[in-house]
Amino acid sequence: MVIARISTNEGIRYAEVKGGRYYLIEGDCFDIKGVSDTPYEGEVKILAPVEPTKIIALGANYKKHAEELKLNVNPTPTIFLKPPTAVIADGDDIVMPRGAIRVDYEAELAIIIGKDCRFVSAEDYAGVILGYTCANDVTERAFQKIDGQWARAKGFDTFCPLGKYIVTDIDPFNLELKAIKNGEVVQQGNTSDMIHGIPRIIEFVSGIMTLKKGDVILTGTPEGIGEIKAGDTIEIEIEKIGSVANKVRNE
Amino acid sequence: MVIARISTNEGIRYAEVKGGRYYLIEGDCFDIKGVSDTPYEGEVKILAPVEPTKIIALGANYKKHAEELKLNVNPTPTIFLKPPTAVIADGDDIVMPRGAIRVDYEAELAIIIGKDCRFVSAEDYAGVILGYTCANDVTERAFQKIDGQWARAKGFDTFCPLGKYIVTDIDPFNLELKAIKNGEVVQQGNTSDMIHGIPRIIEFVSGIMTLKKGDVILTGTPEGIGEIKAGDTIEIEIEKIGSVANKVRNE
Repeated sequence: MVIARISTNEGIRYAEVKGGRYYLIEGDCFDIKGVSDTPYEGEVKILAPVEPTKIIALGANYKKHAEELKLNVNPTPTIFLKPPTAVIADGDDIVMPRGAIRVDYEAELAIIIGKDCRFVSAEDYAGVILGYTCANDVTERAFQKIDGQWARAKGFDTFCPLGKYIVTDIDPFNLELKAIKNGEVVQQGNTSDMIHGIPRIIEFVSGIMTLKKGDVILTGTPEGIGEIKAGDTIEIEIEKIGSVANKVRNE
Repeated sequence: MVIARISTNEGIRYAEVKGGRYYLIEGDCFDIKGVSDTPYEGEVKILAPVEPTKIIALGANYKKHAEELKLNVNPTPTIFLKPPTAVIADGDDIVMPRGAIRVDYEAELAIIIGKDCRFVSAEDYAGVILGYTCANDVTERAFQKIDGQWARAKGFDTFCPLGKYIVTDIDPFNLELKAIKNGEVVQQGNTSDMIHGIPRIIEFVSGIMTLKKGDVILTGTPEGIGEIKAGDTIEIEIEKIGSVANKVRNE
């Protein structure tokens, strides 16, 4: 199923997306009680697909990206957190912070957690995942180096665009992902190149902290990261999942 | 005012604390519409004083602590995030994760944000703060070194005990803070020794991300950090603010 969270005349609703039309869901995406037979006819704005209580992200989870940034690859995943206030939707602007020196896009597959869970084994990973979307792990590269900790560099408001759709019932292990800047493909990779795969990520992160439904895990970016500037449009596109496109502007 | 969040027969409520008794608040701590004239007579459990959407913490914000851990002191504050799932209340157990090698206490003054805000100047800091409480920034020291990023080391469930009370209308600039392990003072400092003071912290963090009411900022720990083990009781105590005490147990 392809699910979107939309703003309608009847308030914020989840909808199933079919043929470019929105069929309103009764309940929410975590507990679908029914889907309308007829498409919603009113005006719609796409919202970020979830409001996570936390966003956990993997650093250096594609080998060539770790090499391009000279990051250590540990036998255990390296995680960091982005604040929920960083989330924006497709069509919202990425805002360059005052004093930013170099801001980069990072195309990533995002996991949407489907239910509260803790201590999930790798083999049970699928049972706690609602679906997948695409994400842009926007990063200020100079602050990342200065601070050592990445919370500032990756934590500015607007630094976490999330895709238009949550796609459920999809095999996430061999998907092409791309960043497209002003119409040109600037980053390309495949989820099959992850160092720590999705089952291992779920086991590892849920072994540290309780995951809540709607929480988001960003699974890392492949090589080919690069700069964005005010005036650019940056789009993250993942095969079978869709895209998220955002303009960049100054504060 | 001294405010507690408590579990009562009437559900979860905020209360003013006077003479060890709880006077129920109408509304919540961010918008107090009235306070009962008579104390609550039923049984009470103290809860964590807020349910933050995010917890921002300062690294290396006391000079001697930065020296003891050989941390760089940057001219800009170094921030990191702890997940909301790490929060526990006074009396709850700190749980040692499986595989943990060395878990430490860190006594800290915590700022409770009183309203949603962004781009707050240092001179306006007081207007966005509801009050202060004490916190224990529990940290697994080995994972902190292995990972480089601190999200795992500081992000386990139960790794963020928050104080019994929020104290409003207090001068936070010269308060003694202590960690007390099994009845013995093991860490001692004063908030006057912070490298980046509270007004600067508010300006800096709100310049990065929107702060929401109930969000928590941990202001760093002084020197004297040390280990806790299963069976220990660790208490963080701050002058004029109160304390948070927790037993430590294995998973």
